[in-house]
Amino acid sequence: MSKLLIAGTVAYDSIETPFEKVDYTLGGAAVYIALAASHYPIDAAIVSVIGSDFEQKHLDLLEAKGIDLEGVETIADQKTFFWSGLYKNDMNSRETLTTELHALAHFNPVVPEAYKNPKIVLLGNLDPSVQMRVLDQLNHKPELVILDTMNYWMNHTPNELDAIIAKTDLLTINDEEARMLSGEYSLVKAAKNILKRGPKYLVIKKGEHGALLFHENEVFFAPALPLEEVYDPTGAGDTFAGGLAGYLSQIKNINFEHIKNAVVHGSNLASFCVERMGVSRMINLEREELVQRLRYFKKLTQFDIHLES
Amino acid sequence: MSKLLIAGTVAYDSIETPFEKVDYTLGGAAVYIALAASHYPIDAAIVSVIGSDFEQKHLDLLEAKGIDLEGVETIADQKTFFWSGLYKNDMNSRETLTTELHALAHFNPVVPEAYKNPKIVLLGNLDPSVQMRVLDQLNHKPELVILDTMNYWMNHTPNELDAIIAKTDLLTINDEEARMLSGEYSLVKAAKNILKRGPKYLVIKKGEHGALLFHENEVFFAPALPLEEVYDPTGAGDTFAGGLAGYLSQIKNINFEHIKNAVVHGSNLASFCVERMGVSRMINLEREELVQRLRYFKKLTQFDIHLES
Repeated sequence: MSKLLIAGTVAYDSIETPFEKVDYTLGGAAVYIALAASHYPIDAAIVSVIGSDFEQKHLDLLEAKGIDLEGVETIADQKTFFWSGLYKNDMNSRETLTTELHALAHFNPVVPEAYKNPKIVLLGNLDPSVQMRVLDQLNHKPELVILDTMNYWMNHTPNELDAIIAKTDLLTINDEEARMLSGEYSLVKAAKNILKRGPKYLVIKKGEHGALLFHENEVFFAPALPLEEVYDPTGAGDTFAGGLAGYLSQIKNINFEHIKNAVVHGSNLASFCVERMGVSRMINLEREELVQRLRYFKKLTQFDIHLES
Repeated sequence: MSKLLIAGTVAYDSIETPFEKVDYTLGGAAVYIALAASHYPIDAAIVSVIGSDFEQKHLDLLEAKGIDLEGVETIADQKTFFWSGLYKNDMNSRETLTTELHALAHFNPVVPEAYKNPKIVLLGNLDPSVQMRVLDQLNHKPELVILDTMNYWMNHTPNELDAIIAKTDLLTINDEEARMLSGEYSLVKAAKNILKRGPKYLVIKKGEHGALLFHENEVFFAPALPLEEVYDPTGAGDTFAGGLAGYLSQIKNINFEHIKNAVVHGSNLASFCVERMGVSRMINLEREELVQRLRYFKKLTQFDIHLES
């Protein structure tokens, strides 16, 4: 089967929303990405780092989903990366309460031999120089390098970020980050600017407003599912990227049409992710639920344009 | 041909954007609505009021578009309703500088005999009691009563607004107004609440993020056109409603599928409206441009969902 290499954090998270509070729950970009990608018939591996406190049951859980963990290093005298955050009433503003790097500060990514020729590599949000060290270990350029990043790296390591963006085929960022990265308010102008820096494809994530995919002079608008309640937005962006990468990993000769479909698959998975706290919804998600909601996404946006005259 | 009755303001506007400033330019909800609707093969009439300062060339312009002005009353010793507004850099925040009612304060709507049995009536943003006086003059319930309103009436005349909403088939409001009207933050919950008050259909306008159409348990998500630059947002919501109503006026036995298409037609017209100051783009808009952009809207949202396994 086609191989997807995922680099990113494995973490414990404490999350508080208006509905519920959970402590030290399994999280991290690579975990959300891999769980989303595991819904597709592909081989996926994580390159990451954990501390000695990381529980065996969580390793077992990921391995039971078919995720290769050979590239996950355990650092003996460190704890696992910890993040805690608080969501306010409208769920659109997130406050990060704590970021404790622990083992992540010592992350020296080592790509397993079996994953040095992946079809796709997805570099989850990480220090851009760490992302680059992952790419540098590959034997050939993958068919698609997908990059996720965030505003922190735009402010703190802009040169390293530029270098990794130049090697990226598909970049996913949110609307505010696209504006920050490009200096353009209009997302159409921002996309034009960013597509000149390396990526052939740009996905701008707009949360509840869906996502825009840009490629050359083409644009595609993918809806978000209108939800009664967002229970916990943590990991939605990673899940989106994981669904997108998982879908594409099984596709031959990836083109714009495939990437449009992949954006919908990513949105579909993200719509499940936010229905429960942390990764809990992703663990029990059945294929039939996925397929049914994909049909709903299709229905949500279908229309005719005939002019009756 | 099918008849569309439009009630709303006819105005002079002064508009300042980061790009340009125009003074005393033709505006008003009924003008934007009628110009949008005039792109469809229907008969349309405006019920409104103007002052003695209203220029003949503007009456001529509207009549040249086939818009019936018998229901537009001129009040001799008054000026035409005047509005001025300022758009800040991001074009998303509008500041109203002046609202001078003048003739509008004396508006006593009189529906022309020829329009007392319209197929559709579109009640543009106005005092809800004035909107009701228009409905009261009709001989039969139209096939569709479309209502546009705004936050001002939710705050100032909630009972009168409730009464007109109860007689509405299709309500168009923006996302903030939907939240205010329902007391629900989630737009899905807001829609459920509002659909219990009378309307069979609810369109929630989200500006650059598109529009959501709700009907019973169905939802449809219409994209906005990703634009490089919004030049002047004035009248975009009215133009949306006018395109929607114009499209539907030519449709037999209107159902949810038709209304989905109508929302796209409305979005299409609104995307042109914002390209120039005031109504200028709407006056010179050619049918071929409309059709071409409709095809673009279709392409913007088309995707497949096949799971390749």
